[in-house]
Amino acid sequence: MNASNRVGPRALAALLPDLDRQSGPRYRALSSALTALLLDGRLAGGTRLPSERDLAAQLRVSRATATAAYDDLASNGMLLRRRGSGSYLILPAAARVAGPGARMARNPLTQDTIDLSIASLPAVPGLLQAATLAALEPLGRLAAADGYHPYGLDELRDAVAARYRMRGVETSREQILITNGAQHAFDLILRALVSPGDRVLTELPSYPGALEAIKAHSARTVAVPLSAAHGWDSGAIANALLQTAPRLAYLIPDFHNPTGSLIPTAQRRQTAAAARRSGTRIVVDESFIDIDLRADAERIESPLPMAALDPSGFSIGSLSKPIWGGLRIGWIRADVADIQRLAVARARGDMSGAVLEQLVALELLRDLDANLGPRLAQLGEQRDALLAELTRRLPGWRAARPAGGLSAWVELDAPAATPLTHLLEHRGILISPGSRFAPDGALERFLRIPFALPTPRLVEAVAVLAQTWTELDPKRHARTETSLVTA
Amino acid sequence: MNASNRVGPRALAALLPDLDRQSGPRYRALSSALTALLLDGRLAGGTRLPSERDLAAQLRVSRATATAAYDDLASNGMLLRRRGSGSYLILPAAARVAGPGARMARNPLTQDTIDLSIASLPAVPGLLQAATLAALEPLGRLAAADGYHPYGLDELRDAVAARYRMRGVETSREQILITNGAQHAFDLILRALVSPGDRVLTELPSYPGALEAIKAHSARTVAVPLSAAHGWDSGAIANALLQTAPRLAYLIPDFHNPTGSLIPTAQRRQTAAAARRSGTRIVVDESFIDIDLRADAERIESPLPMAALDPSGFSIGSLSKPIWGGLRIGWIRADVADIQRLAVARARGDMSGAVLEQLVALELLRDLDANLGPRLAQLGEQRDALLAELTRRLPGWRAARPAGGLSAWVELDAPAATPLTHLLEHRGILISPGSRFAPDGALERFLRIPFALPTPRLVEAVAVLAQTWTELDPKRHARTETSLVTA
Repeated sequence: MNASNRVGPRALAALLPDLDRQSGPRYRALSSALTALLLDGRLAGGTRLPSERDLAAQLRVSRATATAAYDDLASNGMLLRRRGSGSYLILPAAARVAGPGARMARNPLTQDTIDLSIASLPAVPGLLQAATLAALEPLGRLAAADGYHPYGLDELRDAVAARYRMRGVETSREQILITNGAQHAFDLILRALVSPGDRVLTELPSYPGALEAIKAHSARTVAVPLSAAHGWDSGAIANALLQTAPRLAYLIPDFHNPTGSLIPTAQRRQTAAAARRSGTRIVVDESFIDIDLRADAERIESPLPMAALDPSGFSIGSLSKPIWGGLRIGWIRADVADIQRLAVARARGDMSGAVLEQLVALELLRDLDANLGPRLAQLGEQRDALLAELTRRLPGWRAARPAGGLSAWVELDAPAATPLTHLLEHRGILISPGSRFAPDGALERFLRIPFALPTPRLVEAVAVLAQTWTELDPKRHARTETSLVTA
Repeated sequence: MNASNRVGPRALAALLPDLDRQSGPRYRALSSALTALLLDGRLAGGTRLPSERDLAAQLRVSRATATAAYDDLASNGMLLRRRGSGSYLILPAAARVAGPGARMARNPLTQDTIDLSIASLPAVPGLLQAATLAALEPLGRLAAADGYHPYGLDELRDAVAARYRMRGVETSREQILITNGAQHAFDLILRALVSPGDRVLTELPSYPGALEAIKAHSARTVAVPLSAAHGWDSGAIANALLQTAPRLAYLIPDFHNPTGSLIPTAQRRQTAAAARRSGTRIVVDESFIDIDLRADAERIESPLPMAALDPSGFSIGSLSKPIWGGLRIGWIRADVADIQRLAVARARGDMSGAVLEQLVALELLRDLDANLGPRLAQLGEQRDALLAELTRRLPGWRAARPAGGLSAWVELDAPAATPLTHLLEHRGILISPGSRFAPDGALERFLRIPFALPTPRLVEAVAVLAQTWTELDPKRHARTETSLVTA
C-alpha cells in the first residue's frame, strides 16, 4: 500500500455532500459518501483518511458517528485500520473479482436486494408438474440401470434434435450432446478444441461467462465491436478472422447478450464464409433464442439458423432462460465426430448428467410454447416499462429496444458504469457494468439492465439508479482534473 | 498401414483351434479365433489375411463361412477390406480409447451384455419417493428465485457437514461445496490448483477417472505402488512426496478403488505429515466410504478420517455409490478460502448445480442408513459368491477379500488382462483390465471384477471368464517367441 496518499480533514470535508440532506442515519450517509469518493476515483485506493476525531470535529458530528461510519466501511471491506498509522481506504475484494465468482464472494442477498446482475427468471409454473411426472414412471424405469448416460438420455437428445428440425435444420440424435447448461457446453468445446495461447473471437460486448471461460482456458480473446446498430459488422468480423485465424469464434446471433440484437441472414452467411476461409470453428450460443419478444408479424422474417449456414459449426442451447436456471439442462449440436469427442471431455469432467433433470426437461419440452407464452407477454411489458422509465428519469441515457432476450444495453452519458454499480451495491442493487462484457474492462459507458423483474421493482430500481447517478457526479468522469488529494 | 505383414492360409490354419469343437455357428468360431490371435499379439495389427477363398479351402469350410467370419470382424471394426489388395486385421478403435470414453465409443449395450466395466449399482428403492417429495414443496419454494446456487443449497451443505461431524470432524456449511459427483469434485480441484506440468501423486493402482482427469489437465502422475497387502506403503509415499514435491496427492484410503483396502490410522498420519513437509495438498476420495462391508465388530476400530489428520486437505465424496450414479451429487470438504476458490472454478465450468437433484439428495441423506442396510447385506453376499466362484473355476488367480467397495482386485496367473478383456467384450462381457488403473498401462496381471451384479450373473460371468482364459492360452504371454507370421 502506498502510504503517501493522504487526505486532510478539511480537504475531505470539501469533497463530501451535506450529510444533513441525506436520508437514513448520519453515519451511513458518511460511509456512503466516502464509498462514492473511492469508487468514482476522487479518492485513490490506499488513501489515508483523517482520524475519526479530526473528521468528526471538521464535520461537526459526534465522534461516535465518525467511528460508526469507519466501522461500516471496514465491514464492507473498504477500510483497513493499521494500529498506530491510521485508516486507509481500500477497494473491496468483491469489486476486484469479476465474473460469476463476484456474486458468490458477496454476503447472502437480503430480501430487499434488487438483483439485476443476472438476466434470468424464476421457474415457469409448469416446472413442478413436470418434476412430479418425471419422478414417477420415467425415473422408475431408468433407476434399474447404473444411471450413466454420458451423451444424455436418448429421448431428450431426440427431443432437442426435433427442435432443430422444426427450425429447418436436419439433425439426428447422434448430433446432440446433453450438458449442464450453456456455460458447460461452451466449457466442453473449449476443453476439446482450444489449447493455451489459441485465439477465440468474440463480439464486443459479449457474455461475461464466455469471456471468463476463454480466459480460464488460457486462450486469447479477439473482440470485434458490434456495429452502431448493435448488429454484426460482418466486414470487421471477416477481417479479424482472416488476420488472426482464431481457433474458435463464439457468437450470439439470436438475441445477443447483452444487446438483444438479432443478426440478419446476410451477415450470418458472410461470417460463415469467412470462418471457412480462416479455418475457424464457429460456436453460436442460442441461449436466448426462445425469449423472442417480437410481434407475430416480425417473426415471419426470422433469419436462418447458423447451423443451416455453417454445417460444421457448433450450436449451443439451454433451458435456463426459457424454463429455469436451477434446471441445469443445455446441449451442443455438432457433427457426430465432434459430439463423440465432446462426450469424452464431458466424461472426464463430471462423468454424466443428472437423469431426473433430463426427464423433467423432456416433460417441459413437450409443452415449451405453452409454458413460454404468458412469460413472453409479461417480459415484453417489462421491457417497455423499463425503457419508458429510463427515458423519463435519465433522459441522457440511450437504449435500443431489444427484439428478444432479457436485458437492455444502455449507453450512459458518461463513462462511469463501474463506480455507479459499486455505489448501487451499497444501496441494495446488484447490476453489471459494461466492462464486465468486455475482455479488457472497456465499455465503461454501458450498463446492462435486465427486465426480468416485475415492473414495480424495475421502476424502483430506475429511481435509485437516477438518484445515485446524480450523486456520483458523473460529469467529473468526462474531464481531467488534478487530484484533490493532498500528497 | 504396414502391408509387409502377411499370413498365408497354411500358417494361419496352424494358429487356429479346431472350429468343430467350438460352440455356436462356425463362422462365429472363426471370427472369434481370429480376434483372439489379434488381441493376444500372435497376429500383429495390420496383418494381411489370406483371401476368403484360400482360407475356406485350407480350413475345409464353405466360402460363405469364411466370408461371414470376415464380415463379422469388419462389423466389429477389426477388419479393413481394401479393394484389390485384400483384407487386413486392425485393432478396433474402441480398444484404443481409454477411460470413460471407451464405454461411450461402443455400440449400445444389448440386454445380454454383462457390464463389469463400471463398479456401480442401480438406484436404491428410496429414490423414487425422495424424488416425488422433492418435486413438491421444496422445489416450489426455491422455484420462485433464479435457481443459481454455485456453492450448493445451504440445507444440503448443512446435511453433508453434519455427516463429517458425525465422523468426529468439526465441519461448517461454509466448508462444503456441492458438486456433480466425485469426478467433478476432483476436476474442480485440478482446475483451481494444478498447472500444466505440475506433479500429482496417486496410488498404483488408482481410479481411472482420476488418472484421466490428471492427464487432461496436462499434469504428470507420480504413481506409488500399494504394498503387497494392498495398503499404503507410507514410507514409499513419503519418499515420493519429498523427492518429487507434487502439487497434489490423490488418495483413496477408504475402501480403495480398485483394491477395496481400508488404510489404518498410522499410515494416514505418516502420509499427512510427509505431505506437510513436501508442501503437497492431499485430496482423499471417499466415494466408497458408505459401502462398508465389514462386520459390526470390525467397524468399531475404524481408522480416523483423513480430514481429522490433515486439516488443510481436501475430502471429496459422492452419492453415486451408496445411492445412484444417475443422481449427480457429490461434494468437496475443505477450508473456507479453498471452497470459495473452488466455487469460482465451478461457476466458470457450469455455473451452478441442479436444484432438484440437490433436494432429492437431501431427502435421501435423511435416511441414508435405512436405504443402505439391505444393499450392503446383499453386496457382502455377492462379494463372497464371486470370490468362491473364482477360487473354484480359476484356482491360479488370487484375490484378497475387500473390506468394502464394489470390486475385487484379482491377480491373474499370467500378464494378459488386456487381450482377455478384448476377447470378453466379443463375448458380451465388459470388464476393465488392470492397465486401466495405471497411468502407463502396466498391471497387465490384474483385473478389476465388480460384484455389483446379482450372484447368478456373477457366476455366469466367471464361467465365461474361465473358458475364455483357457482359450486365450495365457501361458504364451509368459514366454517370448519368434513370430509365426510370414513376412
